[in-house]
Amino acid sequence: MRQPTVYLLSCGDELLFGHTLDTNSAWLAQECTLLGWRIVGHRTIGDVTPDIVGAFLDAASRADVVIVTGGLGPTRDDRTRNGLAHAMGVSLFEDPEAVEEIAARFRQFKRPMGENNKLQALIPEGAKRIFNPAGTAPGIEADLLGARVFCVPGVPKEMRAMFDQTIRPHLTGAPGATSEYMRRLHLCGCGESEIGAMLQPLMRERSNPEISTTVAETIVTVRLYANGATLDEAKRVAGEAEKEVRAILGGDIYGVDGETLQEAVYRLLKERGAKVVTAESCTGGMVAAMLVDVPGVSDVFLDGVVAYANETKTRRLGVPAEIIEKYGAVSRETARAMAETQLRAGTFPAPVYALATTGVAGPDGGTPEKPVGTVWIACSRLDPDGHGLTRTTLFNTVSDRHGIRLRSANAALDLLRRTILDIPVRSEVEDFTW
Amino acid sequence: MRQPTVYLLSCGDELLFGHTLDTNSAWLAQECTLLGWRIVGHRTIGDVTPDIVGAFLDAASRADVVIVTGGLGPTRDDRTRNGLAHAMGVSLFEDPEAVEEIAARFRQFKRPMGENNKLQALIPEGAKRIFNPAGTAPGIEADLLGARVFCVPGVPKEMRAMFDQTIRPHLTGAPGATSEYMRRLHLCGCGESEIGAMLQPLMRERSNPEISTTVAETIVTVRLYANGATLDEAKRVAGEAEKEVRAILGGDIYGVDGETLQEAVYRLLKERGAKVVTAESCTGGMVAAMLVDVPGVSDVFLDGVVAYANETKTRRLGVPAEIIEKYGAVSRETARAMAETQLRAGTFPAPVYALATTGVAGPDGGTPEKPVGTVWIACSRLDPDGHGLTRTTLFNTVSDRHGIRLRSANAALDLLRRTILDIPVRSEVEDFTW
Repeated sequence: MRQPTVYLLSCGDELLFGHTLDTNSAWLAQECTLLGWRIVGHRTIGDVTPDIVGAFLDAASRADVVIVTGGLGPTRDDRTRNGLAHAMGVSLFEDPEAVEEIAARFRQFKRPMGENNKLQALIPEGAKRIFNPAGTAPGIEADLLGARVFCVPGVPKEMRAMFDQTIRPHLTGAPGATSEYMRRLHLCGCGESEIGAMLQPLMRERSNPEISTTVAETIVTVRLYANGATLDEAKRVAGEAEKEVRAILGGDIYGVDGETLQEAVYRLLKERGAKVVTAESCTGGMVAAMLVDVPGVSDVFLDGVVAYANETKTRRLGVPAEIIEKYGAVSRETARAMAETQLRAGTFPAPVYALATTGVAGPDGGTPEKPVGTVWIACSRLDPDGHGLTRTTLFNTVSDRHGIRLRSANAALDLLRRTILDIPVRSEVEDFTW
Repeated sequence: MRQPTVYLLSCGDELLFGHTLDTNSAWLAQECTLLGWRIVGHRTIGDVTPDIVGAFLDAASRADVVIVTGGLGPTRDDRTRNGLAHAMGVSLFEDPEAVEEIAARFRQFKRPMGENNKLQALIPEGAKRIFNPAGTAPGIEADLLGARVFCVPGVPKEMRAMFDQTIRPHLTGAPGATSEYMRRLHLCGCGESEIGAMLQPLMRERSNPEISTTVAETIVTVRLYANGATLDEAKRVAGEAEKEVRAILGGDIYGVDGETLQEAVYRLLKERGAKVVTAESCTGGMVAAMLVDVPGVSDVFLDGVVAYANETKTRRLGVPAEIIEKYGAVSRETARAMAETQLRAGTFPAPVYALATTGVAGPDGGTPEKPVGTVWIACSRLDPDGHGLTRTTLFNTVSDRHGIRLRSANAALDLLRRTILDIPVRSEVEDFTW
């Protein structure tokens, strides 16, 4: 049986002229592929009605399903609905239920609804609207040359919500769709090439699943891409390979399938009834903000201080001014004091962890001894018996200011994770007990 | 004279299936546009020869220049050279100079050259190779249906180097190429459709510059896209329109050409010798982290507290427990106290601002009175005379947890900016002097 096919269209001058990067097509392509559909093409077109009409007709003649993103906004250069109506040879009409949905959304936002926004309620005759759970612009579903066309907004969050609610059910379980399954294993604290070398024998030996690695801001992902006659078969194939990968990488793997490092840390703390506090200099609140990304984090996250100025390190955190003076703000000793003084003050009941960062994020402020990208990280633990441990490590990276801070925040969360689990850190560490 | 046109093709299953994000097309589109060429389309095709041939012919019939990235590697699924030869109706031949260049590159890397790599020296008859200064795979330049076709590797570094060395000179100064100039004006605190409506008369009246709006997490960008016979002419056209836009939007515009809200706030504080401290609940460190994104922020940023737990609001910030009990953690009164107590304690020398957020980021914790997305923001100012002002506002948004927090952080920075400049806030505010 022929594998069912999808064509992706992205609409908008901002994409065509390169002002906005099209991340939607890659996301949609992956999701459709995992549902066993074959992508036959992507195309980006500008806000020019004849081009849109031509692209609609071409795509609909090449695939069973066409997914169109963008061009559904409230302004005159949003021409997807016009283009679709022309391609279908019909007129647009104002869908009264769509008007009501848009109006309800504006009432919820407590904002006045413009006359413009009514444009968003226009859909081609014979088409139906797709509810948008995440924004004002409804989508459109229609048939064209025997293909099913889905038009959704270009805003990634809205596009994804509408894909999940409306398009995914249409694609799921289609006749001829092969079963694909992707398992992702995430690591922090080791390099991609190091991991690649460790997995190379396995990669050579197996073609199903296909094993590959990617890296983003020090988070390495090992991808196991399996296929089989059924989903269960594909999962079984991926599961077997996962066992082999875990035998090699073990505790370095912090999570799977998109889990973030902060989610993994949250889970570990919660399982143990433990808490965490943060004291950040160069990361400037990023570690706290990443933790607070996790719903329910109030169960484990007590308190955060952004001690960017030296004076704050002393006043808010109780770091002795002499330590900063003697060793410098960017030093093992300052990082250690930032974490340890938090717990030694006796404010927080054990078991509790403190995480501290201090470094040179650049672009200025580097010295030959402490170049930009030098970051000291400390993680302290206070045990119920009143004793404690502080683990310190030096993290080095080359990136821009934002990248250095983000990677340092990841390194800090990874140090916390490894301290909780009592597993080795792959860089040099020095431990202090107290 | 007709503006010359470019069509972009991206080749490779990894792009088509969404495993790799296509950043090349956006980069090429921007570069070509700034050289005065018009992009008429992008298309992504997989490693299937008939699709590649079809896309080559289609693109060459639509544009003066076709730029193709990817599919020039040493493996069998790299089919760009085959596809081009088929489209041209010619055979491939081994270019001896290309073989020598590839061999030289391998000698330089001190790596053995595989038999495979000789495939990379094949080019269609009548075409010529493009030197690759950054890698092994040569590119190909050819004529097809009257269009000039440039094929370069998909590796961004190699693609960019070859564009600069070979393609850019071909595009520069082409007859009919116009000079383009883009100016961007950024705003926060008003909706995109509201701004669209205010600018509509201007948008209708002018086609040069083209005026359009985009929005990302409550930051609205007004784009003025101008063209002229020369760059100076295009800049002048954009500058005139900018004056008209500023006459309408005035103080709502916080910055231009990619400036972030935190950069604008930093600049305003620095100009005034003023400082800021933060006290965050629902944003959880994000406001501090955004400020710390700005190099040199230590000039203006003193201190940040992430008071996620109620107990921390009292202990670290001195918010009276009775206020939290009486009005709730998410309330005007708690936000006000979080900001105001910071400055009333007398720790910080005036002029200094305090910024506080407290809200329901979800997904749980919403109530009918305080649904998810309800965020109270307070901004206090301590003047050198010891008096102060606290401005409070309610921010509402519908998004996921991360989006709610990011938009709230933007709203907080925008409130700070408007308080510094003493310009109106477009939502309801209540001010308290003390």
